[in-house]
Amino acid sequence: MAVQTIATSGTSAVDLGPAAALSCRECGHRVPLGPVFACEECFGPLEIAYDFSAYDTEELRKRIEDGPANIWRYAPLLPVPADVAGKPNINPGWTKLVKADNLARELGVTGGLYVKDDSGNPTHSFKDRVVAQALEAARAFGFTTLSCSSTGNLAGAVGAAAARAGLRSCVFIPHDLEQGKVVMAAVYGGELVGIEGNYDDVNRFCSELIGDPAGEGWGFVNVNLRPYYAEGSKTLAYEICEQLGWRLPDQIVVPIASGSQLTKIDKGLRELIELGLVEDRPYKIFGAQAEGCSPVSTAYKAGHDVVRPQKPDTIAKSLAIGNPADGPYVLDIARRTGGAVEDVTDEQVVAAIKLLARTEGIFAETAGGVTVGVTRKLIESGALDPAKTTVVLNTGDGLKTLDAVAGTGLTATIRPNLDSFREAGLA
Amino acid sequence: MAVQTIATSGTSAVDLGPAAALSCRECGHRVPLGPVFACEECFGPLEIAYDFSAYDTEELRKRIEDGPANIWRYAPLLPVPADVAGKPNINPGWTKLVKADNLARELGVTGGLYVKDDSGNPTHSFKDRVVAQALEAARAFGFTTLSCSSTGNLAGAVGAAAARAGLRSCVFIPHDLEQGKVVMAAVYGGELVGIEGNYDDVNRFCSELIGDPAGEGWGFVNVNLRPYYAEGSKTLAYEICEQLGWRLPDQIVVPIASGSQLTKIDKGLRELIELGLVEDRPYKIFGAQAEGCSPVSTAYKAGHDVVRPQKPDTIAKSLAIGNPADGPYVLDIARRTGGAVEDVTDEQVVAAIKLLARTEGIFAETAGGVTVGVTRKLIESGALDPAKTTVVLNTGDGLKTLDAVAGTGLTATIRPNLDSFREAGLA
Repeated sequence: MAVQTIATSGTSAVDLGPAAALSCRECGHRVPLGPVFACEECFGPLEIAYDFSAYDTEELRKRIEDGPANIWRYAPLLPVPADVAGKPNINPGWTKLVKADNLARELGVTGGLYVKDDSGNPTHSFKDRVVAQALEAARAFGFTTLSCSSTGNLAGAVGAAAARAGLRSCVFIPHDLEQGKVVMAAVYGGELVGIEGNYDDVNRFCSELIGDPAGEGWGFVNVNLRPYYAEGSKTLAYEICEQLGWRLPDQIVVPIASGSQLTKIDKGLRELIELGLVEDRPYKIFGAQAEGCSPVSTAYKAGHDVVRPQKPDTIAKSLAIGNPADGPYVLDIARRTGGAVEDVTDEQVVAAIKLLARTEGIFAETAGGVTVGVTRKLIESGALDPAKTTVVLNTGDGLKTLDAVAGTGLTATIRPNLDSFREAGLA
Repeated sequence: MAVQTIATSGTSAVDLGPAAALSCRECGHRVPLGPVFACEECFGPLEIAYDFSAYDTEELRKRIEDGPANIWRYAPLLPVPADVAGKPNINPGWTKLVKADNLARELGVTGGLYVKDDSGNPTHSFKDRVVAQALEAARAFGFTTLSCSSTGNLAGAVGAAAARAGLRSCVFIPHDLEQGKVVMAAVYGGELVGIEGNYDDVNRFCSELIGDPAGEGWGFVNVNLRPYYAEGSKTLAYEICEQLGWRLPDQIVVPIASGSQLTKIDKGLRELIELGLVEDRPYKIFGAQAEGCSPVSTAYKAGHDVVRPQKPDTIAKSLAIGNPADGPYVLDIARRTGGAVEDVTDEQVVAAIKLLARTEGIFAETAGGVTVGVTRKLIESGALDPAKTTVVLNTGDGLKTLDAVAGTGLTATIRPNLDSFREAGLA
């Protein structure tokens, strides 16, 4: 039993369950829950502080196990009201943890290899998890428009969540995105606004809009709702441990875009330990980047504490953030847990996508190619121990990045008769 | 409690759980379980006959409820060995039954409207359900190659399932398919053979191959394994009823391609009644087609018992079977249950895809547009009672038929400043 308190000060009128306050990651300054994301004292990032003091370990475990087959089974550990499962949302999560024995054989992993396959989410990426949290915060703060800047997965997740919740959505994207991505974002019927400029211009405009009266009532999931939004990634850690039978994995390989997901997975694992839901033993977190956008990997290998921005050039577009906000925290976690940060080339990404599809029947987006490719590289270098239980994240769906494997095609073309079939050597 | 027997004769050495024999749908002739699909007496279609006599209703219900969150919770009712859940397969099913209150408001449904969203399956269509059964039959009969003829969803489902099971796969498609569909089918690394000809040529070639020594050891999921394959659709009926709290829906709207899915949903509902798992009360099954391929709907409206083949011309390509094998059985079921068969135009399909996305955040493939569009039409005509509990099937994912909504796009394009934002009327 673990009755414990993550100490809180700061009070708030909104009901977001166990979320007690916002706390600065840098200086610890606390403010009441609200749509803010930067510390007024030091401009550090704000994150959620919880009050878990009322929980009895075994009661909590049973409550989780009896909960719905989606992220809301973990509502007691998230910044959401207790009745969240009954509200209209797209109920992401509880995706498959696939025991990947074929892939393990190919990579020489003997300690158990698992793929956490988040392509099973409603809009087929892990973004549904984070948007679902932001949606509850938006409702709590009375926002009527759900918004974001995006170049892909996030736009669809926001559009779908807002549609079902009955909120207006307005998503900003660079005006010259590929038509396929535009269609996926537009189909949910919200406003989809093209900005004449690049993704940086889109982001800068969104920050401007938040500070303007025109942005009143707007919740930007990845800006003014970011502290809530980011917590959604904790559910990946919760699910992995519960699906392993309430056990920590020895090693976990996580993709790095902003780095937020990796830091929140670490936070989730530590919470499970503190709550007594899993046995406290060492785990290692590994970060995965594409070589064409590897600011964190580069800093890690150079032994730096700061991350120097890069100009992205990789097919792994969902990870192509050249100046990752949580990069320094990722470095801390990789070093503290005994993990590492590694990167792979685009060619290795494509090979890894095909390897995962061929061995396990899972068609991953490029980000999944990055984690599987990095896993292979880490095993070869000895950084990752093949005799330990290892979990690799696939955060999105191959159908969204078809271009990456466009070279894949017919193995033979024949005439519709048996002679032609035999000539092709298929018999 | 319902201890009951679906009488069996015929014996078999293979272990496919409660599957006892193959029985001719037309003349009732029974043969042992094997890779055959047509009756040797009358050429009628063979289907699985079960022995459910050992089941106690409440024990069975508990066994199901305690089972895994996939179709194998229903293993006691399927032609699969008891240990199926432990074998490598892609574990489809237990997809979301979404309470569609927003859509209900738009359509005027007051009795409860639900969307059974099968886009959540591993390869994002209901085909994973049927392929999973065929895979177990293939293993039982010692086949080493899994095969099919396909123009889309089925190819991916077979490729993924074979990859994970460690079987060879060889899928036959028309050689001139769109590149995107080829990539989706090829990524799993099996043989993908283009046939110089149309889909009929592909099918004819597959039948030829089955009869040739070159086809020895080949299991064609939708030909010589069809009786097993088809049973996978029963799981849609089981899940819908269990997710409704072990209750039959009053009305269910099902898409029609070959018609097999609709007939197996009816079979699944009747089994639940016979086993005592749901209360026996009337239900109505409605069939949905696209106007451009509406042989069953046309026969239904004309009062015919036979279905006259059509040449398909519709964007709903996954339903474009002009000569549906199970058409007559679909007519029987629609008439027996008090349902109907209806069709919608391609424009109505597109409008329905957008309606579902806008109201519920579900992006359906064209087949889902057909069922939602037909539901609207059936309500308007009075054939479907809006005061009754209604379930609409979405059998696939919008990402696979992006062309259908390619016209969807940006609602505005602006410069990255607030003046431009205001000018566009977005404030």
